[in-house]
Amino acid sequence: MKRVLVIHGPNLNLLGEREATIYGTETLETIDGKIKEAASQHQLEVETFQSNHEGAIVDKLQESRGAFDAVIINPAALSHYSIAIRDAIAATDLPVVEVHLSNIYRREKFRKTSVIAPVVVGQITGFGSDVYILALQAVVQLFRTVV
Amino acid sequence: MKRVLVIHGPNLNLLGEREATIYGTETLETIDGKIKEAASQHQLEVETFQSNHEGAIVDKLQESRGAFDAVIINPAALSHYSIAIRDAIAATDLPVVEVHLSNIYRREKFRKTSVIAPVVVGQITGFGSDVYILALQAVVQLFRTVV
Amino acid sequence: MKRVLVIHGPNLNLLGEREATIYGTETLETIDGKIKEAASQHQLEVETFQSNHEGAIVDKLQESRGAFDAVIINPAALSHYSIAIRDAIAATDLPVVEVHLSNIYRREKFRKTSVIAPVVVGQITGFGSDVYILALQAVVQLFRTVV
Amino acid sequence: MKRVLVIHGPNLNLLGEREATIYGTETLETIDGKIKEAASQHQLEVETFQSNHEGAIVDKLQESRGAFDAVIINPAALSHYSIAIRDAIAATDLPVVEVHLSNIYRREKFRKTSVIAPVVVGQITGFGSDVYILALQAVVQLFRTVV
Amino acid sequence: MKRVLVIHGPNLNLLGEREATIYGTETLETIDGKIKEAASQHQLEVETFQSNHEGAIVDKLQESRGAFDAVIINPAALSHYSIAIRDAIAATDLPVVEVHLSNIYRREKFRKTSVIAPVVVGQITGFGSDVYILALQAVVQLFRTVV
Amino acid sequence: MKRVLVIHGPNLNLLGEREATIYGTETLETIDGKIKEAASQHQLEVETFQSNHEGAIVDKLQESRGAFDAVIINPAALSHYSIAIRDAIAATDLPVVEVHLSNIYRREKFRKTSVIAPVVVGQITGFGSDVYILALQAVVQLFRTVV
Amino acid sequence: MKRVLVIHGPNLNLLGEREATIYGTETLETIDGKIKEAASQHQLEVETFQSNHEGAIVDKLQESRGAFDAVIINPAALSHYSIAIRDAIAATDLPVVEVHLSNIYRREKFRKTSVIAPVVVGQITGFGSDVYILALQAVVQLFRTVV
Amino acid sequence: MKRVLVIHGPNLNLLGEREATIYGTETLETIDGKIKEAASQHQLEVETFQSNHEGAIVDKLQESRGAFDAVIINPAALSHYSIAIRDAIAATDLPVVEVHLSNIYRREKFRKTSVIAPVVVGQITGFGSDVYILALQAVVQLFRTVV
Amino acid sequence: MKRVLVIHGPNLNLLGEREATIYGTETLETIDGKIKEAASQHQLEVETFQSNHEGAIVDKLQESRGAFDAVIINPAALSHYSIAIRDAIAATDLPVVEVHLSNIYRREKFRKTSVIAPVVVGQITGFGSDVYILALQAVVQLFRTVV
Amino acid sequence: MKRVLVIHGPNLNLLGEREATIYGTETLETIDGKIKEAASQHQLEVETFQSNHEGAIVDKLQESRGAFDAVIINPAALSHYSIAIRDAIAATDLPVVEVHLSNIYRREKFRKTSVIAPVVVGQITGFGSDVYILALQAVVQLFRTVV
Amino acid sequence: MKRVLVIHGPNLNLLGEREATIYGTETLETIDGKIKEAASQHQLEVETFQSNHEGAIVDKLQESRGAFDAVIINPAALSHYSIAIRDAIAATDLPVVEVHLSNIYRREKFRKTSVIAPVVVGQITGFGSDVYILALQAVVQLFRTVV
Amino acid sequence: MKRVLVIHGPNLNLLGEREATIYGTETLETIDGKIKEAASQHQLEVETFQSNHEGAIVDKLQESRGAFDAVIINPAALSHYSIAIRDAIAATDLPVVEVHLSNIYRREKFRKTSVIAPVVVGQITGFGSDVYILALQAVVQLFRTVV
Repeated sequence: MKRVLVIHGPNLNLLGEREATIYGTETLETIDGKIKEAASQHQLEVETFQSNHEGAIVDKLQESRGAFDAVIINPAALSHYSIAIRDAIAATDLPVVEVHLSNIYRREKFRKTSVIAPVVVGQITGFGSDVYILALQAVVQLFRTVV
Repeated sequence: MKRVLVIHGPNLNLLGEREATIYGTETLETIDGKIKEAASQHQLEVETFQSNHEGAIVDKLQESRGAFDAVIINPAALSHYSIAIRDAIAATDLPVVEVHLSNIYRREKFRKTSVIAPVVVGQITGFGSDVYILALQAVVQLFRTVV
Repeated sequence: MKRVLVIHGPNLNLLGEREATIYGTETLETIDGKIKEAASQHQLEVETFQSNHEGAIVDKLQESRGAFDAVIINPAALSHYSIAIRDAIAATDLPVVEVHLSNIYRREKFRKTSVIAPVVVGQITGFGSDVYILALQAVVQLFRTVV
Repeated sequence: MKRVLVIHGPNLNLLGEREATIYGTETLETIDGKIKEAASQHQLEVETFQSNHEGAIVDKLQESRGAFDAVIINPAALSHYSIAIRDAIAATDLPVVEVHLSNIYRREKFRKTSVIAPVVVGQITGFGSDVYILALQAVVQLFRTVV
Repeated sequence: MKRVLVIHGPNLNLLGEREATIYGTETLETIDGKIKEAASQHQLEVETFQSNHEGAIVDKLQESRGAFDAVIINPAALSHYSIAIRDAIAATDLPVVEVHLSNIYRREKFRKTSVIAPVVVGQITGFGSDVYILALQAVVQLFRTVV
Repeated sequence: MKRVLVIHGPNLNLLGEREATIYGTETLETIDGKIKEAASQHQLEVETFQSNHEGAIVDKLQESRGAFDAVIINPAALSHYSIAIRDAIAATDLPVVEVHLSNIYRREKFRKTSVIAPVVVGQITGFGSDVYILALQAVVQLFRTVV
Repeated sequence: MKRVLVIHGPNLNLLGEREATIYGTETLETIDGKIKEAASQHQLEVETFQSNHEGAIVDKLQESRGAFDAVIINPAALSHYSIAIRDAIAATDLPVVEVHLSNIYRREKFRKTSVIAPVVVGQITGFGSDVYILALQAVVQLFRTVV
Repeated sequence: MKRVLVIHGPNLNLLGEREATIYGTETLETIDGKIKEAASQHQLEVETFQSNHEGAIVDKLQESRGAFDAVIINPAALSHYSIAIRDAIAATDLPVVEVHLSNIYRREKFRKTSVIAPVVVGQITGFGSDVYILALQAVVQLFRTVV
Repeated sequence: MKRVLVIHGPNLNLLGEREATIYGTETLETIDGKIKEAASQHQLEVETFQSNHEGAIVDKLQESRGAFDAVIINPAALSHYSIAIRDAIAATDLPVVEVHLSNIYRREKFRKTSVIAPVVVGQITGFGSDVYILALQAVVQLFRTVV
Repeated sequence: MKRVLVIHGPNLNLLGEREATIYGTETLETIDGKIKEAASQHQLEVETFQSNHEGAIVDKLQESRGAFDAVIINPAALSHYSIAIRDAIAATDLPVVEVHLSNIYRREKFRKTSVIAPVVVGQITGFGSDVYILALQAVVQLFRTVV
Repeated sequence: MKRVLVIHGPNLNLLGEREATIYGTETLETIDGKIKEAASQHQLEVETFQSNHEGAIVDKLQESRGAFDAVIINPAALSHYSIAIRDAIAATDLPVVEVHLSNIYRREKFRKTSVIAPVVVGQITGFGSDVYILALQAVVQLFRTVV
Repeated sequence: MKRVLVIHGPNLNLLGEREATIYGTETLETIDGKIKEAASQHQLEVETFQSNHEGAIVDKLQESRGAFDAVIINPAALSHYSIAIRDAIAATDLPVVEVHLSNIYRREKFRKTSVIAPVVVGQITGFGSDVYILALQAVVQLFRTVV
């Protein structure tokens, strides 16, 4: 049974409690529930992790090597400047999928550049919490291709 | 039964015949087959359309209003300069999903900017022909949300 | 009797049907009617032409030489990148007037630069469909000056 | 009877005396005469005002509130840097039309950006002194629309 | 008894009459009253001065040397281009405090750069008319430090 | 009794021990003392918090919701790149005031841009440790306005 | 016998009729005649093609695979923005030579960048209609090298 | 006897009283004395004029036509943004020489660009008040050449 | 006996396990061994420290004051954006040497700018793990100079 | 008999000895042989000259006036910054052709701009040593046109 | 008796023979004659030196230390990129004056930046060969000031 | 016995005689002595070479092939624009080390970019004349690795 790590970046623990027009009304707990349900349908084991600390996300990515078969990451604010996370992803041999809840190409100029994007397999952006479900599906597909 | 229009931009008719390291080995025919199969699983009716002509794609987008319930578009080279297509999408009341076969954020600098992205619901990029399947799934999800 | 060609660029055929807050509620048909009425008041013969195809507009501009005495063009989205239309205008010996329905200097950054503007006689922007009527007047004035 | 204020920016008092190839051979007096004649045809009352002082133009714009129904302004050199005039226009509740004698998009790079343009109704540029006549017509049209 | 000069730049004489969502509903007269009241509480003598003319503000700043012990200035639109005011401040031996009613870092891009800021002691921005009261307090504090 | 949280960013714990010409000779302890004294004069309860960790500051900001009525933050080095802190502030419903000890507009180019500034109520910069006292006053004023 | 396709971009059908100081006085017909004569001297079969439509040029380039042994293209205005043509050339396995009648490095700034240049074998620019003759020679040389 | 107008821009009336390390210790009065002495040696009549008002300098430049044979101008802060002065100089048929007391290429970045420079005969910068004496000499030389 | 602190930034704990073509095949443990051996040859006491947390590195740098005589730092990814580390170094009175394993000037554009470089004594880049040995030597030399 | 000077810039004397994948395997001697052979076929006299010294190339270009009828130059590295060579070419009355062995538009960004290109007749780039042969042909053609 | 070195940069040896509309009709010999005549009037000894070689100019500047009391340099094309000459001037303890025959601020964009200007005493530009005479005068004045 | 070439760029022959605060007080002769002493300790043969001529340095680099086993170069001013030296280094099969006496990242903006850096093995900057000694050590280490 394949294992997938889902990483939520800074402030995503506030989902559902703030700026609902941009980020929707679901809480992170609800979303994690949806992710786990979808994962079990795909017969995947899934672990979710949220942190506001760049360093903690780098640590977690390093530990994912060996322990997981793929990573789904929503780097949130860190997408735009954390080269440390970029390097941690590049050092991981696992397939990594980047997701964003909102369509970042519609927002402030600085949100249009992700320093993470060039080192991931692919990016899914703009469908609210469905981006995690779509990313799981993409991961399932990647497992098939590689095998 | 919901109807979905899938638009393939310039040079995508050559898929499978050229630059396989970037775009994969499947032909557009194979991909269209996969799209139709997936659509039928979701109980969607689907039409696919390919053109090397910006104007023809604008015409097609305009005709999609009323005739379709959603559009999936891979604007290919036109992603980077066709404001005409951007305006045609903005004029459409339908949900539009942008897809790219390759991870455009890994390639030449000019491929990192899509003038289309700010007017679509979301973007899926980098999973090869699976981006169309994921986009269909996203569309199914959008139909649910709206209803 | 002088002849004037009026060219409408991509998506202007949708006028009145979409984004009324930006472009107003008149259809292109209504506007063409107004143009013709105003033209007859000035004793001008007028032909209107709309296309979503850059190449078709270039073709039309080339044919206008000899057949018309002046051109009024609303290049719409193509204003911002069509050097082909710019060159076609530069190759025309006729006076050309550029018009825009909305005040393009109030909108997205990319709409503030027209590659067409440096090769026309003058530009009228921001008065809704009245820009065509004002352009006709400008043309009448140009005919007087040249004679 | 509607009242229109026409403002001429710095150095326009020299019209007809200098650089005739760019600005034409009419003096400002002649132009003001033409403006008044055209105004009376439209049954408008018109006042013209010229100053080389940014501050004086800001003062005049402030006074126009209540005293006039519309403003036509040729900000000349000040178009490119006077945010004070921009703010004065934004603070005015009147419709303001910006005009330029020459096609500013054909000239030095710094003349292609007007800091005034984003706060006016529309802009007319490049038809010599006819821009004032066209602007009057645009104003007449605006009066009709609003009523 | 220390003397403080308060300078209001272009269009601030319109406060309370326009764009209340940005600048608030108090008139400049009301604000000047509040400034004087606060000044008397701090046992400061205060003079207020408003002008739409860059040159008049430069003149006033030059005269402030010897006549005042500190200057509070809201350069308004001139913040963004008046190097003449910048040089006048640099030539003054007095402490100068720059204030802005609105948070200029939230507005149009050109409003985010103040050519004045590098030559003042400090800047207070975004608290409506309270910026003047806070600036007075800052000045009181500066007097203490220097003594 | 209103509660105010004061956050000091990276390296501010070294105040008074280093670079006195830029940052003054008071230690953070002294400054915190002054803040508390001023707070008690305004009948405010105040808590101060310093960290060199971006993540810890984000955590603290998240916790401030409900527990405090306003936040004063000196983001120090993080002002210039921490979009995570920006997002945390935007997610807070509390009024937030940004302060800087030195006039950042006089220093290295990269210090002139604060990614935090667009999401705070206002900014006070350049008066040494008095910026905290002024910010408290601003907060008091904000409480009055809102009530 | 080797076959060479010569593609002329937008507005080149007007050669000889307009702007003779930039483009010379020969018509496209004359130039095509010269090309064919030179081709027969090199024992090459040659086909010439002109279009004002980007899409038609992309179609033609796609058809050239298999049907021709080399392509000479003067993309004219499309040189500066048609990534669709760039991609079509990259997808062709044939050697492609880019030519320009005028020295594009002497003209407007936007003409100095060709998005086509990075995907062709070489570029010949500035010798009037002789660029086609030189390109034929280059092609002959390329055939020798590859064989 | 030839007549020369010398214009001093904003803040130059403070010379000798401020920032002596940049601008020297002579007052404007002393410098004007030196200019007049040198002028009489060259048998030139000279008038000097200082203003902090851009508009007043434009007015003065306009009046110089007919009344003077050459102009020497130190535009000071206005060098960097006053297109109104640039246009006034361009409209003058007289030879104009631009001078700066300090070497502006050694100072802040914004001081390195003069919008005036492209419309004057020549520029002399960096020799303190001697720049006026050198400019007089240059003017004498220009009179000889033209005669 | 002099004490030297060696700091390794994010992801350097993975050395030898990933991307060997860029970073070599030695593990961080091996490198730390080499550093200690070289240090003992120079009669230096050395402590090594690795962290993926920017805040932890700032903390460590602050503690180094008094406890160490010099610092050698490989900031890795943080070189390119951590102004917090830059400020911590500037606040340290110790000589600091910056090192990079790979030649950062050969890699992605964003790796060519180190925000740390302007506040260190010197930089050594591109010799693999030998950069630490060379930095120790540089430090020894600095100790001699200062004494 | 017409005389042509061929100038080879810095490092071209190493041709065939280094970086064969970019510059080919022929030595400069071989290439000069080919040039001379082709020249004699065209009944041209040819002289070749190589130098690593910008000044020596400027000297040579100056001497070419009168002594030669045309110049072919491969400025190599100097293409990108030698304004001295640009000025020397502009001062020459002879037709000058610029050549590059490799397609410079495919390489590092700084190689895409030639400061020489705007002052030559035309440029031929990317066909290996054949560029010299093609340039000779272009020169022959130029001689015909001028006569 | 004071000694002055005059350095003429690349291509100035061609003066009078080329591009007379930009550089005038005098030869360098004539100009050197004028310089010597003017020098003798000021009782200065003068040596003139021209070279097309950057290195030779650096050598000459280095030798000028001790041998001369001031340097006048027209760096011509090298003004825009020769940091080597800039550094040689900075290393010279002598006053250096930069001159240009033409008004470089009227010409191509790259000619508007002199890398030399920030290290000289002052710059004189645009008066043809008179710039040398004016520079001599400036030097005489500098000698007086320093004594 | 390995042979190492040390190249000193323009103006380094003046070391110790000028700008001691930046470059130190040692003469180049002293430094060359230190280099030779250190070389003999490492049992290396060393040759030092200084020139103010870019071309002479290119010549020397070309000759180093075969004659030396490694090169240490301080390109001084030429670091920032000499693509000719860059290409000469790239054409050399020897390991090349770039050194700078001062920390170039602390100085003028143009000194922060070395066009040489991307083609060397590594760079050592900012330790005064010790950079040569450290570079020798780096070279010794490189010899070990390669063997």
